[in-house]
Amino acid sequence: MVVAQKNNVNTDRWPIAPAIKGLKSSILREILKTSSQPGVISFAGGLPAPELFPLDDIKVAMDEAMRKYGGDTVQYSLTLGIPMLRRILAERAAEKGTPTKVDNIIVTAGGQQALELIGRTFVTPGQYVLCEYPTYVGALQVFNAYQARYAAVEMDHDGMIIDDVEEKIKKYRPTAIYTVSNFQNPTGITLSLERRHALIELALRYEIPIIDDNPYGDIRFAGESLPTLKSIGGDAVIAVRTFSKVLAPGFRVGWLNAPKDIIPYFEKAKQAIDLHTNTLNQYIIHEYLVAGKLEPHIEKLKADYSVKRDLMIRTLDEFFPDGCTWTHPEGGLFLWVELPKHVSAKELLPQAIEKKVAYVYGEPFFPDGSGDNTMRLNFSNATHENIVEGIKRLGQLFSEHI
Amino acid sequence: MVVAQKNNVNTDRWPIAPAIKGLKSSILREILKTSSQPGVISFAGGLPAPELFPLDDIKVAMDEAMRKYGGDTVQYSLTLGIPMLRRILAERAAEKGTPTKVDNIIVTAGGQQALELIGRTFVTPGQYVLCEYPTYVGALQVFNAYQARYAAVEMDHDGMIIDDVEEKIKKYRPTAIYTVSNFQNPTGITLSLERRHALIELALRYEIPIIDDNPYGDIRFAGESLPTLKSIGGDAVIAVRTFSKVLAPGFRVGWLNAPKDIIPYFEKAKQAIDLHTNTLNQYIIHEYLVAGKLEPHIEKLKADYSVKRDLMIRTLDEFFPDGCTWTHPEGGLFLWVELPKHVSAKELLPQAIEKKVAYVYGEPFFPDGSGDNTMRLNFSNATHENIVEGIKRLGQLFSEHI
Repeated sequence: MVVAQKNNVNTDRWPIAPAIKGLKSSILREILKTSSQPGVISFAGGLPAPELFPLDDIKVAMDEAMRKYGGDTVQYSLTLGIPMLRRILAERAAEKGTPTKVDNIIVTAGGQQALELIGRTFVTPGQYVLCEYPTYVGALQVFNAYQARYAAVEMDHDGMIIDDVEEKIKKYRPTAIYTVSNFQNPTGITLSLERRHALIELALRYEIPIIDDNPYGDIRFAGESLPTLKSIGGDAVIAVRTFSKVLAPGFRVGWLNAPKDIIPYFEKAKQAIDLHTNTLNQYIIHEYLVAGKLEPHIEKLKADYSVKRDLMIRTLDEFFPDGCTWTHPEGGLFLWVELPKHVSAKELLPQAIEKKVAYVYGEPFFPDGSGDNTMRLNFSNATHENIVEGIKRLGQLFSEHI
Repeated sequence: MVVAQKNNVNTDRWPIAPAIKGLKSSILREILKTSSQPGVISFAGGLPAPELFPLDDIKVAMDEAMRKYGGDTVQYSLTLGIPMLRRILAERAAEKGTPTKVDNIIVTAGGQQALELIGRTFVTPGQYVLCEYPTYVGALQVFNAYQARYAAVEMDHDGMIIDDVEEKIKKYRPTAIYTVSNFQNPTGITLSLERRHALIELALRYEIPIIDDNPYGDIRFAGESLPTLKSIGGDAVIAVRTFSKVLAPGFRVGWLNAPKDIIPYFEKAKQAIDLHTNTLNQYIIHEYLVAGKLEPHIEKLKADYSVKRDLMIRTLDEFFPDGCTWTHPEGGLFLWVELPKHVSAKELLPQAIEKKVAYVYGEPFFPDGSGDNTMRLNFSNATHENIVEGIKRLGQLFSEHI
């Protein structure tokens, strides 16, 4: 009988699936690690402002959940989500103009897992996903794992250019249209009302589902409110929603609002992935919603982020050199900077980190790895003081290289 | 401009990936739905006894977590898990005889997601997974989604028959050896010490990882404690662990203990699947562990389940007809019944449900869909009274068909 040689196993000889072996680790999460070093002013994350978490109300919801539901809060539950949370999510969607029944809802482990369920359900190797150019890096990570290709559509200040959408649909016959239609991550751009209608018309004509990834839609602090793609398009649209940006991301609770015939596919996929979303946080969020706490909280977020956005834009105006442009988002957490073509945001990041400021360069958001002169700035997470100081330092750095 | 026809979308025309379209919904979860009807005595689930959840201590841990860590408990966190939980999991493993460092640990959304990460990392379509016959249905669901085939190994009362393991390794060159070595789900069988060594020897010789799915190992209430495969095999073994059976499944917190060179693959896979496991429950469990509450709780579980197992076996002795056999597990939650060959546990289930008793028939646990005359009985979740009454009813039913 052999005593195993504990430290003499050559795991290099183990058969790792090529798809996972080739998969790049999220550059974004690597940058986040660096930028969380002490003393670094970070515009890199997509984190809500931690000082705004409604901890007292969360605590009340938690206590209520334990008191009312006891052991149910920590027992196994249904793959689709706890019935009372699905019900209130459906009701709230209906109240806001999207006719929704409980059967349209599946609770997920955040928006990221909602995307995973979509990737597993719709993407087979080599198929095209139509998306914005640039697009959300977390979606690319999912679709890459399912070996998608991309039909990436140019944007202007009103979102995807519809002629280009139709051209790419005809050329690539994509399996899905993926969009972040409100205050897009990374650019902050919002799809105009006219284009919403036009996009839905194309989706209906070509029988392709629209995936509307909408984590930021409720955080509008300027301009006119627009109906969601889901409220206009009904069953033509699958809405990806989450509590991460409007309440707290650590709960990992999101949901999909989808045609009821599609929900069983997501359910099957989720059974294998994690059986169900953690029960306790579903109850906590249910109690928080029932107490009517979310809307006033979102108003606070809007007020806070609005001031931070204005401050960041004013500071960019003052300190960024000529030849740089940036978006003016009417909501959300991010704005997008384009440096002059010859300046590489990626190459300059280490120098920025030396100056104790971090951002995310644009490259990972482009399916083709372009966008070398672009960067994403988060304005929700930093203090006013740090916004001014950080943007000033970046302005100095870029001025030296233009 | 078109107003979308909200209820006129033909989702049948949407391109669903064949792998998800063909995937069967978990039969087990369907049976659980039926068996949770009021008045039904259920031996179907794998649920811990809810009256044993340590709710007061969980509440204390929750309050402590919020008090000490505030907003961190609901903020984004690292894909690998919160550092303090990984640290204590590594320390506890080391204390119990498995040298482990923080780098060996990734926190997962329960054992099910740990299996998902393993499926994604090791299984490519058409490859073989070596497993027990029968094996855990949740693992089959994962591996099926990655289009695995199975090299299923016969068991006796000491677990997998080692000669058959080697033969099947030679024949099928499996990508991994999957085992539930302690109080197996579904059979309750435990791999003997001698075979643990032999299995590791084979894994080392043929350079195949052993996946030891070990949710029940700590719940031994009879017989002699055995060293885990991981403690014997070190880096030859990836241990799948979870708090679901020893604390509460609704937290969806499990972990993998794996060679440090393999952890980055799991991390990449998890990034795409859900970014990270929910933060709050990781903190709660950390506080619960630090307070030293888990071990005494497990002692309570053992005492309770031991009595229930004994009672179920005594009642089986009394009421089940000749020609039926069952296992005598020394721990865990399940025992396994074989009816005479010509009796179908699947066909009789509706009649059992009519008599208000539910079980899980064996078929879904067999990769080849055999095992028609077998069934799994859970003894942890029912009351003493219901164990006696339920087994009596089943005994009557089967007596009529033998």
